Amino acid sequence: MTDEEIFAGHMGGKLSVELAAPLETQRDLSIAYTPGVAQVSRAIATDETLAKRYTWTDRLVVVVSDGSAVLGLGDIGPRASLPVMEGKAALFKKFAGLNSIPIVLDTKDSDEIVETLIRLRPSFGAVNLEDISAPRCFEIERRVIEALDCPVMHDDQHGTAIVVLAALTGAAKVQGRDIAGLKVVISGAGAAGVACANILLASGISDVIVLDSKGICCHTRTDLNEVKSELAVRTNPRDLSGGAAEALVGADVFIGVSAGKIPEELIASMADRSIVFALSNPDPEIHPEDAQKYAEIVATGRSDFPNQINNVLAFPGVFKGALDAGARRITEGMKIAAANAICDVLGDELAADKIVPSPLDPRVATAVAEAVGAAAKAEGVTHD
Amino acid sequence: MTDEEIFAGHMGGKLSVELAAPLETQRDLSIAYTPGVAQVSRAIATDETLAKRYTWTDRLVVVVSDGSAVLGLGDIGPRASLPVMEGKAALFKKFAGLNSIPIVLDTKDSDEIVETLIRLRPSFGAVNLEDISAPRCFEIERRVIEALDCPVMHDDQHGTAIVVLAALTGAAKVQGRDIAGLKVVISGAGAAGVACANILLASGISDVIVLDSKGICCHTRTDLNEVKSELAVRTNPRDLSGGAAEALVGADVFIGVSAGKIPEELIASMADRSIVFALSNPDPEIHPEDAQKYAEIVATGRSDFPNQINNVLAFPGVFKGALDAGARRITEGMKIAAANAICDVLGDELAADKIVPSPLDPRVATAVAEAVGAAAKAEGVTHD
Repeated sequence: MTDEEIFAGHMGGKLSVELAAPLETQRDLSIAYTPGVAQVSRAIATDETLAKRYTWTDRLVVVVSDGSAVLGLGDIGPRASLPVMEGKAALFKKFAGLNSIPIVLDTKDSDEIVETLIRLRPSFGAVNLEDISAPRCFEIERRVIEALDCPVMHDDQHGTAIVVLAALTGAAKVQGRDIAGLKVVISGAGAAGVACANILLASGISDVIVLDSKGICCHTRTDLNEVKSELAVRTNPRDLSGGAAEALVGADVFIGVSAGKIPEELIASMADRSIVFALSNPDPEIHPEDAQKYAEIVATGRSDFPNQINNVLAFPGVFKGALDAGARRITEGMKIAAANAICDVLGDELAADKIVPSPLDPRVATAVAEAVGAAAKAEGVTHD
Repeated sequence: MTDEEIFAGHMGGKLSVELAAPLETQRDLSIAYTPGVAQVSRAIATDETLAKRYTWTDRLVVVVSDGSAVLGLGDIGPRASLPVMEGKAALFKKFAGLNSIPIVLDTKDSDEIVETLIRLRPSFGAVNLEDISAPRCFEIERRVIEALDCPVMHDDQHGTAIVVLAALTGAAKVQGRDIAGLKVVISGAGAAGVACANILLASGISDVIVLDSKGICCHTRTDLNEVKSELAVRTNPRDLSGGAAEALVGADVFIGVSAGKIPEELIASMADRSIVFALSNPDPEIHPEDAQKYAEIVATGRSDFPNQINNVLAFPGVFKGALDAGARRITEGMKIAAANAICDVLGDELAADKIVPSPLDPRVATAVAEAVGAAAKAEGVTHD
């Protein structure tokens, strides 16, 4: 891939708004626009729920970012984040058939972001928050979920957590082990790290340790923000302190979701049959060929190595399932159902070098959507 | 057209977001999304103007409404306005090839509307304000124009004004008269009426009278809002007072842009060779067959009578021309250029029952865009 090819691929943007039906004749115009449209508007004015049926908003996902934590590039601002948000919107259409548009905001103020989405509420059916920096992302997501009666998910948190749980479930199955007994170390206490810890705890794994750039998040540290402090209480059951070395010795699983490098000797210090997910992109925490010297199963975020763990396995199906079911929100149960569905797609194809399906596997989004919709209905979080 | 056909035509909405290029292979995914997209984001972070080239926003028109003055239905709210906004977005694509999305706001507060658009600024390239009630629409449009360095137009005002000027120019040509000497009465002092008065004055017509629901807007009235008071000073040069009867006697042109009915006898009292535009939709101020007993040229907003005057003749080409030229704003000169271009499309086809092209005439948007772009460049309001 040359730079020239990449830039050519983004020229003029990656999205196009098209007409759902032809508009060729005077009659088409009279139905779609005046005078016919007045009938439809009048009906919705009488019964607002009809907007779901007669507008595109019911199945429209807005991809919302302030550009504060884009890929590994950091706070590059809303305009520079747009190519990523357009790509995300394109993936929603490609894999889930959902309409999606990027909305990038020229503010990083949490109150203003929440307020803006409340004002825009009648314009969409669901919100995919994207590339918003931690710890702001936690508060913003919580407040947007509270304020809007629709599916809302910060993908950097939960999309990552879902695919990590799917991959870990797949890896444990290959090894014939139960995930609940695994000792897991997560490197990174930002959006992805916190959400991964939460979904693994919710899935029954009790021994989870989270590392930030200064070491193990443990209750004796006084330099932790509120989110990390709270996490320190719920994780680290062996009450370790120190850094990556102390955390990794004897651990079964390493999950890297920060840009921090992990020296080869620490991977060597893990338990036998270890599992290493080095998900930093484009530069994994440890090169997969080095990790493979010690670990039984290795995954990265890259497409040029086996076991690519990519959020695209999760978010299209999660939103499709939530919207299909008329879900008011996306629950932990729906996320775990999504992870299991991703893993189950593989069936007998599951192997040490295929713990998750390919990001282009067309079966995934449908399977995830069905599982998520069923979970939403079982939990009673759907409209009517 | 049955209700059933109309509602079926709106089922699921009228728009679809599609991929501008296929996303089939791992290579496509690597270019459009990670890791390739990082290159593009990094380039825009270094030079923000590159967002124009590598995202869809440069040619994206947002159709923005608060649903406070929708068609003849009034303040039906943002959700009920959506079918109209989707239709508008569809027309932008159909006639000008521009991407367009509806943004409806759950607030009618002017400050909040302006503030929201400022926050959304990096997400789009131009703003079509739509169906916002007067007199708020005047202030909101002025403030949005000031705040955003891009084409902004409230279509209910200026789209209507442009097509009215085009139609009047066409009618005067058919009659071999100069528009400057015409005595014009505008019924309606809302968004459309005020903008029509302004564009006719700017086009050299000096004898313009504006009627609101209480009669002639004249300087002696004390019940006028700020916009109408200001208009009363610039119009009504013969210093008339009273109602429609006093205004219409001897007048050359009647332009109806309110729902108020005009009795047949008042049309009869107009000068010989009168021109009547009864544009209220779906119920014209006077039935065109009644008007035709007295007037030489009659037009309506309806497609089932000759001379349909519809904004769709103007707005797609105006925005296309402004965006093609890189205009920072839409000036009065650009609007007048648009009106002349609409009229000029007809050439020898011009006739008493064809004073404007058909709304479906594919020549119009291109001609309007060229004229508007040339005017923008001539006035020096383009970027670089």
